[in-house]
Amino acid sequence: MTTGVWLVGGRGSVAVTAVLGALAVRAGLAEPTGCVTELPRLAGAPLPALGELVFGGHDVTSVPLVKKAQALADTGVLPAGPVRALEEELAAAEREVRPLPPARDQAEAAALMAADLASFQERHRLRRVVVVNVATTEPALAPHPAHARLDALEEAMREPGGRALLPPSSLAAYAAFRAGCPFVDFTPSTGARLPALHQLAARRRVPYGGHDGKTGETLVKSVLAPMFAMRNLRVRTWSGTNLLGGGDGANLSRPGPNAAKAASKSKVLGETLGYLPQGETRIDYLEDAGDFKTAWDLVTFEGFLGRRMRVDFTWHGCDSALAAPLVLDLARLTAAAHEHGRRGALTELAFFFKDPLGSAPHGLADQWRLLCDFADGLRTGPGPVTSGPR
Amino acid sequence: MTTGVWLVGGRGSVAVTAVLGALAVRAGLAEPTGCVTELPRLAGAPLPALGELVFGGHDVTSVPLVKKAQALADTGVLPAGPVRALEEELAAAEREVRPLPPARDQAEAAALMAADLASFQERHRLRRVVVVNVATTEPALAPHPAHARLDALEEAMREPGGRALLPPSSLAAYAAFRAGCPFVDFTPSTGARLPALHQLAARRRVPYGGHDGKTGETLVKSVLAPMFAMRNLRVRTWSGTNLLGGGDGANLSRPGPNAAKAASKSKVLGETLGYLPQGETRIDYLEDAGDFKTAWDLVTFEGFLGRRMRVDFTWHGCDSALAAPLVLDLARLTAAAHEHGRRGALTELAFFFKDPLGSAPHGLADQWRLLCDFADGLRTGPGPVTSGPR
Amino acid sequence: MTTGVWLVGGRGSVAVTAVLGALAVRAGLAEPTGCVTELPRLAGAPLPALGELVFGGHDVTSVPLVKKAQALADTGVLPAGPVRALEEELAAAEREVRPLPPARDQAEAAALMAADLASFQERHRLRRVVVVNVATTEPALAPHPAHARLDALEEAMREPGGRALLPPSSLAAYAAFRAGCPFVDFTPSTGARLPALHQLAARRRVPYGGHDGKTGETLVKSVLAPMFAMRNLRVRTWSGTNLLGGGDGANLSRPGPNAAKAASKSKVLGETLGYLPQGETRIDYLEDAGDFKTAWDLVTFEGFLGRRMRVDFTWHGCDSALAAPLVLDLARLTAAAHEHGRRGALTELAFFFKDPLGSAPHGLADQWRLLCDFADGLRTGPGPVTSGPR
Amino acid sequence: MTTGVWLVGGRGSVAVTAVLGALAVRAGLAEPTGCVTELPRLAGAPLPALGELVFGGHDVTSVPLVKKAQALADTGVLPAGPVRALEEELAAAEREVRPLPPARDQAEAAALMAADLASFQERHRLRRVVVVNVATTEPALAPHPAHARLDALEEAMREPGGRALLPPSSLAAYAAFRAGCPFVDFTPSTGARLPALHQLAARRRVPYGGHDGKTGETLVKSVLAPMFAMRNLRVRTWSGTNLLGGGDGANLSRPGPNAAKAASKSKVLGETLGYLPQGETRIDYLEDAGDFKTAWDLVTFEGFLGRRMRVDFTWHGCDSALAAPLVLDLARLTAAAHEHGRRGALTELAFFFKDPLGSAPHGLADQWRLLCDFADGLRTGPGPVTSGPR
Repeated sequence: MTTGVWLVGGRGSVAVTAVLGALAVRAGLAEPTGCVTELPRLAGAPLPALGELVFGGHDVTSVPLVKKAQALADTGVLPAGPVRALEEELAAAEREVRPLPPARDQAEAAALMAADLASFQERHRLRRVVVVNVATTEPALAPHPAHARLDALEEAMREPGGRALLPPSSLAAYAAFRAGCPFVDFTPSTGARLPALHQLAARRRVPYGGHDGKTGETLVKSVLAPMFAMRNLRVRTWSGTNLLGGGDGANLSRPGPNAAKAASKSKVLGETLGYLPQGETRIDYLEDAGDFKTAWDLVTFEGFLGRRMRVDFTWHGCDSALAAPLVLDLARLTAAAHEHGRRGALTELAFFFKDPLGSAPHGLADQWRLLCDFADGLRTGPGPVTSGPR
Repeated sequence: MTTGVWLVGGRGSVAVTAVLGALAVRAGLAEPTGCVTELPRLAGAPLPALGELVFGGHDVTSVPLVKKAQALADTGVLPAGPVRALEEELAAAEREVRPLPPARDQAEAAALMAADLASFQERHRLRRVVVVNVATTEPALAPHPAHARLDALEEAMREPGGRALLPPSSLAAYAAFRAGCPFVDFTPSTGARLPALHQLAARRRVPYGGHDGKTGETLVKSVLAPMFAMRNLRVRTWSGTNLLGGGDGANLSRPGPNAAKAASKSKVLGETLGYLPQGETRIDYLEDAGDFKTAWDLVTFEGFLGRRMRVDFTWHGCDSALAAPLVLDLARLTAAAHEHGRRGALTELAFFFKDPLGSAPHGLADQWRLLCDFADGLRTGPGPVTSGPR
Repeated sequence: MTTGVWLVGGRGSVAVTAVLGALAVRAGLAEPTGCVTELPRLAGAPLPALGELVFGGHDVTSVPLVKKAQALADTGVLPAGPVRALEEELAAAEREVRPLPPARDQAEAAALMAADLASFQERHRLRRVVVVNVATTEPALAPHPAHARLDALEEAMREPGGRALLPPSSLAAYAAFRAGCPFVDFTPSTGARLPALHQLAARRRVPYGGHDGKTGETLVKSVLAPMFAMRNLRVRTWSGTNLLGGGDGANLSRPGPNAAKAASKSKVLGETLGYLPQGETRIDYLEDAGDFKTAWDLVTFEGFLGRRMRVDFTWHGCDSALAAPLVLDLARLTAAAHEHGRRGALTELAFFFKDPLGSAPHGLADQWRLLCDFADGLRTGPGPVTSGPR
Repeated sequence: MTTGVWLVGGRGSVAVTAVLGALAVRAGLAEPTGCVTELPRLAGAPLPALGELVFGGHDVTSVPLVKKAQALADTGVLPAGPVRALEEELAAAEREVRPLPPARDQAEAAALMAADLASFQERHRLRRVVVVNVATTEPALAPHPAHARLDALEEAMREPGGRALLPPSSLAAYAAFRAGCPFVDFTPSTGARLPALHQLAARRRVPYGGHDGKTGETLVKSVLAPMFAMRNLRVRTWSGTNLLGGGDGANLSRPGPNAAKAASKSKVLGETLGYLPQGETRIDYLEDAGDFKTAWDLVTFEGFLGRRMRVDFTWHGCDSALAAPLVLDLARLTAAAHEHGRRGALTELAFFFKDPLGSAPHGLADQWRLLCDFADGLRTGPGPVTSGPR
């Protein structure tokens, strides 16, 4: 079941780590550590194998994948050995990463992008292509009436002035759906979260997933917050500081993306505790940190007879190394869901996201059970299920 | 359903905090923060109310409860207001905390302890008495052939040289079972974990629970370790340092209890990860810390393509304030299990323990589900179930 | 040598802690822990004794000192015992804390404030009165031509529109100098840092000190940064997060004071390292933290052959308990300097400040030597020295 | 002034890092970051230049320097580029690292070692050779009467049963002094700290320095502890945990070396505070940590009116990268001292050591001043000074 994975932002750190990682595992040069779908519990699900994935993508930059991989090796994100050993395979993947095609309006842009997807699928004889957005975070979207209905949207997309109607992530979702491809948004951007796009997905019978891969601080929150809830300990304050560099950090130092990211990060507490403790989540750019992130969270809580206590944690992680295996997991799970006849929002993938679609639980353990049930259902269950968007 | 709670170590910090807390909640002076059985999810279970609990206990020391409570208020463990307001009620509880009766052998000691339990039950017209061990941690027990069979045990207990045959926690369990009382061990001590005592519990149709209340560092471990497992991230090292004072800390500074406690703390990693990462769990006595504990844990782990990452956390908690509400929870749940006809090991209480009985899961979320099912079963299910000891 | 200490912000946490502390030490109820001038090294300096200090002050609020002290005891800032024992003495101090007198322009306001100082001095027969500003942090001051020369300033102060010409801290400094009183600014506010006020201090032959008491995170920085410098280790990034509540925190959550405080906190790195590492110092308001502050600093640095390393620290302190003894130290040292004939900026007090006057060193050890030499000079040296303002 | 540096433990991580680093700086491939003697303040001292150092050494292992350097590059201790570029130079250094010569007694062993030193000096026409011990930590030495006097020692060294009379570090010191070479002990081992060896150093007119390079946790302690002292804040507890791997960690997991190291680490608190706070310093072996060390220290202290506060820090460093430049500094400074006529204990080098010789101060700032004065004296001062051993 050869499956295409089309990465929007295909030259970024996460994309290159995912591609190199899949190649390295296939070549026996690395273990699939961090790949959730390789756990025994999920082994029985009918997913495309890691070795059956073929990569392509769009990107606005033109740094070759090999160069990017070497740069990531120099800063310790990627191991030097596999980068050297797989130069040829990276160069092959290189040929499938293209610039965004120039267009006079968003309708044409989408059509050209969809054509890229179709050509990719055809040339590689792929069973399907899953589009995954790993581009930089966008600011929150200004509402527009045309977002509400597909016909209005498509009309507006044909207007020359409609170039900013859809943000890049939503344009990518639109193009994917048009081409009959499932779509996953690994970022907090709008992506498929517009009623008009949900209509299109339903009509084209394709599933979609999102939002915002849960890789570090929020991952820890999604187990610590339920712990306090289960123990009936009252969280008084939860303050977080995230220091990160890299392209992601630079982008998040701009107010719009910063606010979008912070909003995405803040969901878990309210949902798992049932109330919002005091405290902010800060994201600060620290250029020198490169692709590494350090987060510090301080939690103060109240126990029996009002006794105040505290826990703080410091997380030092490499976002690309945490995100890349999840990108592979999501591509495989979404491909299988599509094969299985699923369309619309894949709320069962909440395990992977900071801001999951629908009314999914935010506690990691509950999300894990949902995922396991979902994977079991892919194996045994009969057929199509549709979920509405949030 | 007035229920007795007999605390072995009834003058210790945990016991006094539990007693004062129950009194304060009853009097409307405090919220039941930290009491798991007061969560909405468990509200429907047919448990004795917090206000229906009557307290007594054994202790080797003779510091009056009021004095101890005032001392705990001076060091910030207890709030000063309720301690002042509830002096009279504490004095009433005082009358039911007795010294361990002197005896010529363990058989007689157990008989006298059982008589104390019977007298307590009769005088207060209690539906039943649950015995909870909150005394100091004992060293690991030296094996003895008489531990294997009840008849052999009882014979050996009558020998004058048999005084050290059972450690205090097991003698308390024996006496409880003899008196028809359920028993809970909140410490890592041996308690009911001897085949002979399991036979006695089965014969007397009483349930028992344990071991070692999970209040701080291990609680956090029981959510963090499953997080790594669910994400297929390989934990390379997990090192813990616990600094604590108080009577508990002083006792744990002795090699025997220290080893017993460290063994209990180490269970969660192997069980939830499926392998043992490198690293030790240290427990160091720091007199000046009093009833507060600071734990620091460093976890290093490996992600995609071998990338090393790390998280560390610092926990600053008050053990008595964390333990006391769980003691009340356990007394109430065990009483209800007894009422419901359960006997033998209550493996479903794993949520509360570092080293749970039987083959219970060690991840907190799985333990929570087990607890919820257990509480539901108390409400709806029919009758007696027996579990074997570990 | 009975000495008056006039606290601008006399009903705030720092002021009340300083007053209660001085009373408690005098009464033998507390040790002078945290008082630098009580160290053996400085014992020989001819300072007014702690017991010889008499307190008064201005404040815009009217909460009685006893009430404030009880509130601080309830949240653990002050010990309950001394607050109870010293109620009478606090009530006596109460009578000397007055509202800011209403006035039609700043000239009249200053005259009335100076009259309060004179009356205080006369009634208590004080050798002198030292004015210490412990009021809330002000935003940075907008420049005005009249700040440059005393005559222009005094003319402008008489204009009815000139009410906002001087910020409260500078008005207090002006009033102090007018009354012949030394002035210390324990905050980052402008205080005496205007050429016109320096002229006045020089003319009135009074010394002044500042700025911004160094009590926590910056104190640690002032020893860690020199450590890196002395070891030729290159600091790459230094990121700080300060979480604090209380009135100080609420005020610092406003952009103006926040920027002023952050600027003050940032001085130490550039001065001790000789370059500015990447990274921000954040100050976030966390109401629930009350008078306590938690700061987290992450420092990454480069060693031999480019090897990157890191250290982070978490400081959990009570600002009032850290600041109050320094306020007493400063009052005593400044009184002695005045006695000794010093006038103008007391740059030798850099040890106490985040943003010291003049070109003083920022490393704590160098500041300590400067302080010791200064104290020695008070004892042995002859006479007047003048320093220019920054 | 070409100077030999003879490294006892010449194939270990510290030695290889020092050699590679000196070569890399000489070749313009690296900055001398971490080299204290390269700071402007010390630039005027008449030291041999980094580029004038020639390396040799003894070691019991036989892993070639190039291999060791590559292994250190693989684990991120050394940068890969310079290791590749300097293979030839490392191979040249290789030829001067020899096994310890076999001998029938310690007298002969010392003579053979001294001959190696003499041959090294002669072949490279070195002005002098400084011997630096960077071998693994030894257990504390059992006292022996022959340690007290040189003649008794030399007699005992000739006995066949006297093989264990001197530990390796002291034997190396003896051989160095016999060969007229200065000696520096970078470890907590005994080294030259025996009266008999001091006599020999004095007689041979050579200086020596030590003990135990201050590279991480203790370095931070040596600035934090004086901070508390200068502020009259009472440190109540200071607890440290050190997790480290590598050969050093493995050796320190043995009780003898562990105790010796912990003793060395504990000096700074008592000396700088004037009292010993509660708390232990733990050193735990964590194989997976390799040449990196993580230390966590928790300090609780008391401020004004008994208020308790706390600070903790986490240090994550690479011991070799921290130690190696100090080894170069010490070799250069000791060479210059010898040139200047100094003999006996160089107490002025306390800045570099956890457990400095003589009655040197333990606060880093005081040690820095001592070092600066010492360096100034080398430049300007006339001649020989002798210090006694501790």
